[in-house]
Amino acid sequence: MTEAIRKNFASDNIAPVCPEVMRALDRVNHGSAAAYGEDRTTAALSALAREVFEHDVWVFPVATGTAANSLALSAATDPFGAVVCDQSAHIANDEGGAPEFFMHGAKLVPLPSADGRMALADLDRALTENGGHGVHTSPIQTLSLTQSTEWGTVYTLEQLGALTARAREAGLATHLDGARLGNAIAALGCRPADVSWRAGFDMISFGGTKNGAMAAEAVVIFREDLARNFLRRVKRSGHLWSKQRYLSAQIHALLENDLWLRHAAHANTMAQRLAHGLRRLPVAALPFEVQGNEVFVVLPERAVAELETQGYEFYRWTNPPGLDGVLIRLVTCWATESRDVDALLAAL
Amino acid sequence: MTEAIRKNFASDNIAPVCPEVMRALDRVNHGSAAAYGEDRTTAALSALAREVFEHDVWVFPVATGTAANSLALSAATDPFGAVVCDQSAHIANDEGGAPEFFMHGAKLVPLPSADGRMALADLDRALTENGGHGVHTSPIQTLSLTQSTEWGTVYTLEQLGALTARAREAGLATHLDGARLGNAIAALGCRPADVSWRAGFDMISFGGTKNGAMAAEAVVIFREDLARNFLRRVKRSGHLWSKQRYLSAQIHALLENDLWLRHAAHANTMAQRLAHGLRRLPVAALPFEVQGNEVFVVLPERAVAELETQGYEFYRWTNPPGLDGVLIRLVTCWATESRDVDALLAAL
Amino acid sequence: MTEAIRKNFASDNIAPVCPEVMRALDRVNHGSAAAYGEDRTTAALSALAREVFEHDVWVFPVATGTAANSLALSAATDPFGAVVCDQSAHIANDEGGAPEFFMHGAKLVPLPSADGRMALADLDRALTENGGHGVHTSPIQTLSLTQSTEWGTVYTLEQLGALTARAREAGLATHLDGARLGNAIAALGCRPADVSWRAGFDMISFGGTKNGAMAAEAVVIFREDLARNFLRRVKRSGHLWSKQRYLSAQIHALLENDLWLRHAAHANTMAQRLAHGLRRLPVAALPFEVQGNEVFVVLPERAVAELETQGYEFYRWTNPPGLDGVLIRLVTCWATESRDVDALLAAL
Amino acid sequence: MTEAIRKNFASDNIAPVCPEVMRALDRVNHGSAAAYGEDRTTAALSALAREVFEHDVWVFPVATGTAANSLALSAATDPFGAVVCDQSAHIANDEGGAPEFFMHGAKLVPLPSADGRMALADLDRALTENGGHGVHTSPIQTLSLTQSTEWGTVYTLEQLGALTARAREAGLATHLDGARLGNAIAALGCRPADVSWRAGFDMISFGGTKNGAMAAEAVVIFREDLARNFLRRVKRSGHLWSKQRYLSAQIHALLENDLWLRHAAHANTMAQRLAHGLRRLPVAALPFEVQGNEVFVVLPERAVAELETQGYEFYRWTNPPGLDGVLIRLVTCWATESRDVDALLAAL
Repeated sequence: MTEAIRKNFASDNIAPVCPEVMRALDRVNHGSAAAYGEDRTTAALSALAREVFEHDVWVFPVATGTAANSLALSAATDPFGAVVCDQSAHIANDEGGAPEFFMHGAKLVPLPSADGRMALADLDRALTENGGHGVHTSPIQTLSLTQSTEWGTVYTLEQLGALTARAREAGLATHLDGARLGNAIAALGCRPADVSWRAGFDMISFGGTKNGAMAAEAVVIFREDLARNFLRRVKRSGHLWSKQRYLSAQIHALLENDLWLRHAAHANTMAQRLAHGLRRLPVAALPFEVQGNEVFVVLPERAVAELETQGYEFYRWTNPPGLDGVLIRLVTCWATESRDVDALLAAL
Repeated sequence: MTEAIRKNFASDNIAPVCPEVMRALDRVNHGSAAAYGEDRTTAALSALAREVFEHDVWVFPVATGTAANSLALSAATDPFGAVVCDQSAHIANDEGGAPEFFMHGAKLVPLPSADGRMALADLDRALTENGGHGVHTSPIQTLSLTQSTEWGTVYTLEQLGALTARAREAGLATHLDGARLGNAIAALGCRPADVSWRAGFDMISFGGTKNGAMAAEAVVIFREDLARNFLRRVKRSGHLWSKQRYLSAQIHALLENDLWLRHAAHANTMAQRLAHGLRRLPVAALPFEVQGNEVFVVLPERAVAELETQGYEFYRWTNPPGLDGVLIRLVTCWATESRDVDALLAAL
Repeated sequence: MTEAIRKNFASDNIAPVCPEVMRALDRVNHGSAAAYGEDRTTAALSALAREVFEHDVWVFPVATGTAANSLALSAATDPFGAVVCDQSAHIANDEGGAPEFFMHGAKLVPLPSADGRMALADLDRALTENGGHGVHTSPIQTLSLTQSTEWGTVYTLEQLGALTARAREAGLATHLDGARLGNAIAALGCRPADVSWRAGFDMISFGGTKNGAMAAEAVVIFREDLARNFLRRVKRSGHLWSKQRYLSAQIHALLENDLWLRHAAHANTMAQRLAHGLRRLPVAALPFEVQGNEVFVVLPERAVAELETQGYEFYRWTNPPGLDGVLIRLVTCWATESRDVDALLAAL
Repeated sequence: MTEAIRKNFASDNIAPVCPEVMRALDRVNHGSAAAYGEDRTTAALSALAREVFEHDVWVFPVATGTAANSLALSAATDPFGAVVCDQSAHIANDEGGAPEFFMHGAKLVPLPSADGRMALADLDRALTENGGHGVHTSPIQTLSLTQSTEWGTVYTLEQLGALTARAREAGLATHLDGARLGNAIAALGCRPADVSWRAGFDMISFGGTKNGAMAAEAVVIFREDLARNFLRRVKRSGHLWSKQRYLSAQIHALLENDLWLRHAAHANTMAQRLAHGLRRLPVAALPFEVQGNEVFVVLPERAVAELETQGYEFYRWTNPPGLDGVLIRLVTCWATESRDVDALLAAL
């Protein structure tokens, strides 16, 4: 890794592609292959995903998380419907309106939370109120949660199960934005099945890009009815690659031998090391539990500016309601090294 | 090349990625890079595209041709508007409704033609009639042509200029689907500028995937007003890669040293060799001029079945109106070799 | 009727509101009424419609035929799907892209016909071909026919039955644009049930405005699943009236004592009288059978101009393919009188 | 008025049509008229609106407020854009997702407020934050305010002017939901121009239905560029009446001789009488200033139930954040009489 990556904590998407994924791309790069997902690599991916998730799955690889989330939501939600999510959700804030585009104008209903984890009582209230206004109010048809959350926290399996149970009781479909799912699994020490279908989810957006891939995510669906016309939606949004082997190979490489989980565990360890060091600094305050690979920290303006001067890259964040000070986000990834973290801490 | 590619004439998207593009991907695979197109590779691509097209350009790389076409059309056409195109156009037949999705329900108005080349008289009539029905008829706002066409023919520069002039006279924006633009340029022996903005086009879909890339096309825009909010559309459709360097690097590799034109010229030569051989067979009839890299040929059912038995891959095509017999399409590409063509001819 | 209406054959929507409908509006204009369709007039309409159609029905009154057609199609067709119709269909030509808007970009697939009546062989071919292209082609999910047709012809019950049977075999929903359904029923001498659900239709757009109402059409649905979320679509498109009693009262007045059928029969009689007179003129040629209330006639330019000079109003029509001469359309309605027709004939 | 209306305070849309509007409908009900807004009544409406608003105006009558609001917003906002509004806004809560449908998925950004009146500081913060996230955040392009508000309060002209000035500074278009605009004008004692274009609005939804019409609202536009393709949007959403004289006649009747303002003033007076009486009741609390024709009052459950038992109709409302007790809404209208109000007060 060059100097550049060492000081770049802006996101897990600034990293290069991991060697295993590059090798996988090389490996499939020979001869012809049937186009549009009829290739052998895609078939192998489906088989492997079935093993990893211990369940019948329908896997749809796409290049971006925005596409994965938006396609998933559109398959579960009528154009006149609505999706309930946390107010910090990526789908509500960071996807340029993509969910609304793919859902043809269905609404997002964001619920406030303290740390990115939706509270059961809030979901319950939202669903109860939603029923009372007839055709004047868009009916909530889908629950979308994020694991690990946008604030770097992780739901327990019990929390997820309780939320999806309430959602299912109200007839909702359930979706998990798993852009950083590996980090959550590593944090929970559970199996992929535990945090997905066993936790009550009908479909997940499986994140690959932030975890070492070039551009590869996958919608993993556990319900055949939701999968039925899914490929039509993929095609219709321009997300069906003609040379799909190169997309499937990336996800396959991550799933193989749990590479994705090893990457995620490493990133989490780096985040813990960073958080541990920050907590020892009297000037630093960490508003959220550090459970995945994101560290949010409040620092004096002077300290933040100094880091920037030294060439460090990170985002000054929008403070959540009620939080003062200069909040910055530091993200670790598969490529972060201990000495990078230590150097950052030393710089402070 | 393995045996597999040698007998596969199904499309130019069944080929692997060319070595130059793979090397370019390796070359950018180090260190961190700013996400979402703020990287140096993307900046280099823009500079190179400006040289290649000899014009101010705004370049938006995306992974698929469906995305490129649909995004371009949506930037030029109101949701209540319409796009006039040839009835053979990819946008009208092969993109699963993507243009209508990106354009939010705007209509396609396909005009019949003999060989995929729209006739000026037909465009003139369509535009004249379109004006007469007020709000009851969707106003045609955009002209979309395909070069080389879906039947493997190529417009002359004069034909293109006349069509775009008529379109501009009626206030239309002009778009060129250039999934196989390189093949057309190679056929015409012209410069990229001649067949794009000098021929009256406001924007083109530049095809990379069929010409050696992994998954890379680009919308190249010559008018600043059409480019203004374009990136928002890219993001909102999930087509903005976080690690965009890997997308831009592919297009850059194709543009560099005219690799795309050399690839295309080679594919054209292979198609000519194939067409030449086929014309010598008494049982074969070629309904269209072979100008790019697609050869359409009518053969007896017996001959077609024999090829299939021998492991050859190609599409049995839907006959255009008025054409009888078994029409098949044979596509050559950068990876096709002379001996592949000769073996196919021998097999017949 | 004033002079004005006597010379106006432009359409059946240029007429005023019939006395019965005006009286019905007066009758409901007292006291308060629950809003948004919870009123007693709407309940009475539903009960009456059930009698008229001899079937369970779900009735959704709206103000325009464009809304009725587009809402109906959107309830039966996925955004990624398609609707097959005749190339002369109002939904394809005259609604400013409304069907595509309400269907969120689903496509219309118009089939050519000689006289506005889709041929079974053409539908069969379209459905057969549509299945073969997988996700690249929008799947046809709905059949929409028009009765009486845009060329003033009327399908026989057998023709309708054969078309809907083929459609249902392919899993399609079936819709009838009945903007002039009364005229067809009057021509066929059948019952409303015969031309609707007994002929295989899942839903119809019932036309009121052209038949004496102020602004009132109704989507009449015979399948509960298609009706389920329909009111949400009505609301979401701004077509749910708060004071719905005034909308329902119009349709109710037309259905009561078969007023709509008497109006339609009268208009048909006037059209026959007109056609009969025209056929006696050596200069006139009637390209289509006159079965409803529309008369298309080819006249010399001189004669057409003379009528215009005398203050007659009608549309110079776009000729269907293959027809030469000045084609004009003359429409009769509930308010047309014999002497109006005779005067027009005399003027010629 | 019958007994029924006397006890119905549920909304101003439960009332019948006022005699003046019925007479206007009768008056235009003769002879033929050009369809789709080419009639003389519509021309007269445009002329009258110009006088009333003392400005060039483009007037588009439609049948519902949902249509008026959604059409207006869609003309000013790109599909990838956003509209900022108060969290109590009708467009955000009560239109079944219509704005998102008409805007093709553009987002609503609701700001919290105490009483339905957006605070300048909140708008300022929202606009400032919105600019900082590039393509990941939907750009706010339109400001939509409601006058009088959903909580029955009225903005001062200064408040409106300050909000629209800030919006214009940021390049936004400005829209006023005037479903109860007459009530606000009556409360302010100003001219229609003062509260519309002079207050910085580009377009307003002019409410007729709640003020005595049958089903008639109008989008009144003060900027030619926003009006340009507006009729196409009206048609494409099924809101263009063929017999438009009957729609225009309703608005015309309301504008003529200030009928709409007299109606509104009467309704306001009735609301004041009601509020005055309620304030004298020790058990009643009025959380909001009563300025228009809506009275929100917190009552003991016992009192509310007693009213219901006596046949009174009104809505138990969803409490705004922080308000306890049984909140009900009582709405007066043009048809409310003093004795109705007094009887209600006596019943309490």
